[in-house]
Amino acid sequence: MSPAVSGLLTVLGFLLLLLGGSPCSSSKILVVPVDGSHWVNMKVILEELHSRGHELTVLRSAKSWYISSNSSFYTSINVPMLEDEADREFYHKMIQDVLDCRRHPSFIRTFCQQEVMTFAFSNGHRILARAATTIIEDQALMKKIRDTEFDLMLTDPALPLGVVLGGYLKLPMVFNVRWINLGEGHLTIAPSPLSYVPISGTELHDKMDFLDRVKNMLHYLHTVVEQHFIVNPAYSDLFRRYFPPGTDLLSLQYSAEIWLLRADFVFEFPRPTMPNVVYIGGFQCKEAQPLPDEFETFVQSSGEHGVVVMSLGTLVSALPRETTEAIAAVFAQLPQKVIWRFVGEKPSSLGNNTRIVNWLPQNDLLGHPKTRAFVAHGGTNGVYEAIYHGVPVLGLPLLFDQFDNLLRLEVRGAARVVEVRSLNKENFHEALNDILNNPTYRNNIQRLSQLHRDRLISPLETAIFWIEYVIRNRGAAHLQSRGFDLPWYSYFCLDVAAFFVTISGAFIWVSVSVCRFLCCRKSRRKTKAE
Amino acid sequence: MSPAVSGLLTVLGFLLLLLGGSPCSSSKILVVPVDGSHWVNMKVILEELHSRGHELTVLRSAKSWYISSNSSFYTSINVPMLEDEADREFYHKMIQDVLDCRRHPSFIRTFCQQEVMTFAFSNGHRILARAATTIIEDQALMKKIRDTEFDLMLTDPALPLGVVLGGYLKLPMVFNVRWINLGEGHLTIAPSPLSYVPISGTELHDKMDFLDRVKNMLHYLHTVVEQHFIVNPAYSDLFRRYFPPGTDLLSLQYSAEIWLLRADFVFEFPRPTMPNVVYIGGFQCKEAQPLPDEFETFVQSSGEHGVVVMSLGTLVSALPRETTEAIAAVFAQLPQKVIWRFVGEKPSSLGNNTRIVNWLPQNDLLGHPKTRAFVAHGGTNGVYEAIYHGVPVLGLPLLFDQFDNLLRLEVRGAARVVEVRSLNKENFHEALNDILNNPTYRNNIQRLSQLHRDRLISPLETAIFWIEYVIRNRGAAHLQSRGFDLPWYSYFCLDVAAFFVTISGAFIWVSVSVCRFLCCRKSRRKTKAE
Repeated sequence: MSPAVSGLLTVLGFLLLLLGGSPCSSSKILVVPVDGSHWVNMKVILEELHSRGHELTVLRSAKSWYISSNSSFYTSINVPMLEDEADREFYHKMIQDVLDCRRHPSFIRTFCQQEVMTFAFSNGHRILARAATTIIEDQALMKKIRDTEFDLMLTDPALPLGVVLGGYLKLPMVFNVRWINLGEGHLTIAPSPLSYVPISGTELHDKMDFLDRVKNMLHYLHTVVEQHFIVNPAYSDLFRRYFPPGTDLLSLQYSAEIWLLRADFVFEFPRPTMPNVVYIGGFQCKEAQPLPDEFETFVQSSGEHGVVVMSLGTLVSALPRETTEAIAAVFAQLPQKVIWRFVGEKPSSLGNNTRIVNWLPQNDLLGHPKTRAFVAHGGTNGVYEAIYHGVPVLGLPLLFDQFDNLLRLEVRGAARVVEVRSLNKENFHEALNDILNNPTYRNNIQRLSQLHRDRLISPLETAIFWIEYVIRNRGAAHLQSRGFDLPWYSYFCLDVAAFFVTISGAFIWVSVSVCRFLCCRKSRRKTKAE
Repeated sequence: MSPAVSGLLTVLGFLLLLLGGSPCSSSKILVVPVDGSHWVNMKVILEELHSRGHELTVLRSAKSWYISSNSSFYTSINVPMLEDEADREFYHKMIQDVLDCRRHPSFIRTFCQQEVMTFAFSNGHRILARAATTIIEDQALMKKIRDTEFDLMLTDPALPLGVVLGGYLKLPMVFNVRWINLGEGHLTIAPSPLSYVPISGTELHDKMDFLDRVKNMLHYLHTVVEQHFIVNPAYSDLFRRYFPPGTDLLSLQYSAEIWLLRADFVFEFPRPTMPNVVYIGGFQCKEAQPLPDEFETFVQSSGEHGVVVMSLGTLVSALPRETTEAIAAVFAQLPQKVIWRFVGEKPSSLGNNTRIVNWLPQNDLLGHPKTRAFVAHGGTNGVYEAIYHGVPVLGLPLLFDQFDNLLRLEVRGAARVVEVRSLNKENFHEALNDILNNPTYRNNIQRLSQLHRDRLISPLETAIFWIEYVIRNRGAAHLQSRGFDLPWYSYFCLDVAAFFVTISGAFIWVSVSVCRFLCCRKSRRKTKAE
């Protein structure tokens, strides 16, 4: 069968499945998203849910960056959120602090970065707890929400406002998740042996030597301490006042029915998982559409050399001046054309081959046959688009998970990484040349692309199925582990171990006592006999 | 959309997916199955693979019970196997020994049963190792197999002959698995916290009290001891002679690309899992076909009361005489009709409403609208058919996993269990009446049925997809955990813990020494001053 016919049949099959399979009548879904790049992918799911007839209500901040109040596919309610108190300056300051951390030797700098994050988010959690309290105390709003009789809370738990509200309203919850509290989602839900599961932010991979494992353990302990002394206390007052005794953030998170995890093991290191974790990594990716005319003309003008695409994501619009000058100068020397998403003062060294734009159709450019390389900050969305379209990456990580993301591509031979702090013309030129002219990178990422695309059901369809599954079956309790009901010492069987140690100790003590008693008696008899 | 139209579209969708999706050209697959009930479900996968154009070669024993040498969908090669030396008497003896164990109090009897199994299988592993050696040393056979250039080894690792041969031939392996070595498949591949993951054979569920956890830990230690002192030594000579240094049974099992696990969390307790574990529980179930005429007439004659179906599976054909008499007498009192798969001397108390048969179309009977209850031994195949068709179960467990299987239905309120050892007219009658007349059991198993059937892709289609995935992509190494490369003390980070303890100890020692030195100097000065 020719690939075209086969492809057509597959598409037809999916369409029929969509129409016929697992019917789920229209439902009311309450959505608490996270702004920024997180919204970019939540929106993809919401559009799909809307097209399937579900009614969506989105809680957003009046100062939201991306989540508009008017939409054709959802209605919105303004509530207090993190964005009311944390603006972009907050993130620019964080980037500066992280760049400062990068001057430390590698063993130290990840701890420095973790401290930066902890400091930033400790404030964030206090703001969120205040916001949740305000919302819960707004009786008119609560009545409106209760009267709507929502079937589901769909939320991104990276910021736990939705988790708290879902728990308060006793709604079944589905998470669209990659991060939770201060670590990667799995760390909360699945066993994570520290010997081969790197804690997020450590910049370690799954093959660790002894020192790596020491570092990983220290980062883990750091995370546990943060959870107990920074995250939990921020919400304790709220939970004491409005929730049943014993509630904490973890118990609410454990109660989620399904965790739609934005990961794929083509990218993520293999690790233990749980039955209610569903992998949807790359669900936002789609086949490239034709480029707008001005882009297509520019791309075609590159001839056989093709184009390089550069973008540093939604959050970050500016690099240090000397860095952008170096980048522009290297681009100017390339035989390729360059499309650079750039906001700020135009670099003086910009070449004729480089076009600076405010916005670019990233997915369509990455899917264009003339695209040779992607210079990127390593945000999850961009990394999955690069994998989907099989374009090798030159990474300039700045913040959050970007270091870890790019490391995952690097160990698979699909990317090179340049430190922004030490970027100069020479090292950027060497790395970019390597990516463009050494076919290994392209071959490797195209193998990842092939594996990533080889699935029966698309990740987006999978996500929609599980959201509707929870609505249809009123939860998925049969997939939730009973381990979360146990206190930590029972979970780790420490009580059983203590029992065994006591029994063994008692046995040894009795044996020794009996021996001693018998020996004494024998020697006393001997003495008497003498 | 009406359910009929929706159903039709779904079926059409699957058909098109089957035709169009993930094309995989014809491949050569070497199959090493396990005989008995394990073959019943392996055969379902083989028929499907054959219909998709794959060439199958099955290794079987010349004395095989179920695996015929002539088949329209595979070619077979006779090799030495367990069946050459272990006949049905072997299993009947085991059942007697297990029934003897059942007289002990509940805390003791599972250990007694584990001992029975250990004894039986220690001999089995020695037979298997001898068989593997004979096969490997048969140069003509090895040449024939090598010359065929197989793409894949598909095997059921409950008996590890296929694992050993797959490892020796360096073929990518896919497991069709529920049991491995001496425990449930997960115990080998995924982290299994003993606080909520019951070890197979313990008859515990996932809510354990302290004593349950002690028992679970003891069973686990028993399993570890068995693995190291009984299973591994059986193969050590074989591995030393024909495999690279360091090879053992576990390392070969870890190397399997995909574990098609015959489990579904509707039935199995939720527990940690791994990325290369794919759940196919119930893949052998299918919609009921019309019954053969003689069965249909009999079933229809039951009127509004319906029928009870009884079968004790492929392995077991006989219960103690007094037990079958009691069962027949209770059946005789029922207003229902009874179809009983029975081999042996006809009970004298048999009623007119009971028909005894050598063979019955179990799936079609369970799917018949007049079927009210299933009296079963609790083998995995039958349990999944009961779930699929939503028929409540009265369990009479005899061997292996049957006690654990029925417990899982029992805690979900979908079954009652009667001990065969203490079965009499009164308790069998009470339990059967309860199953037939209390609607809770039917409601509960129909809820399980609804959840089990609610999936986008059927378990059989899932199994085929992953087998072809491994062939197409020449493995699935990206789904295999790196944890298995580590020695056990590193896996559990005991080396890191020892390092931390040493560092802390040294720090305390230095601090105490310094304090003591300073104190001494101070007191000496004081003495001098005096």
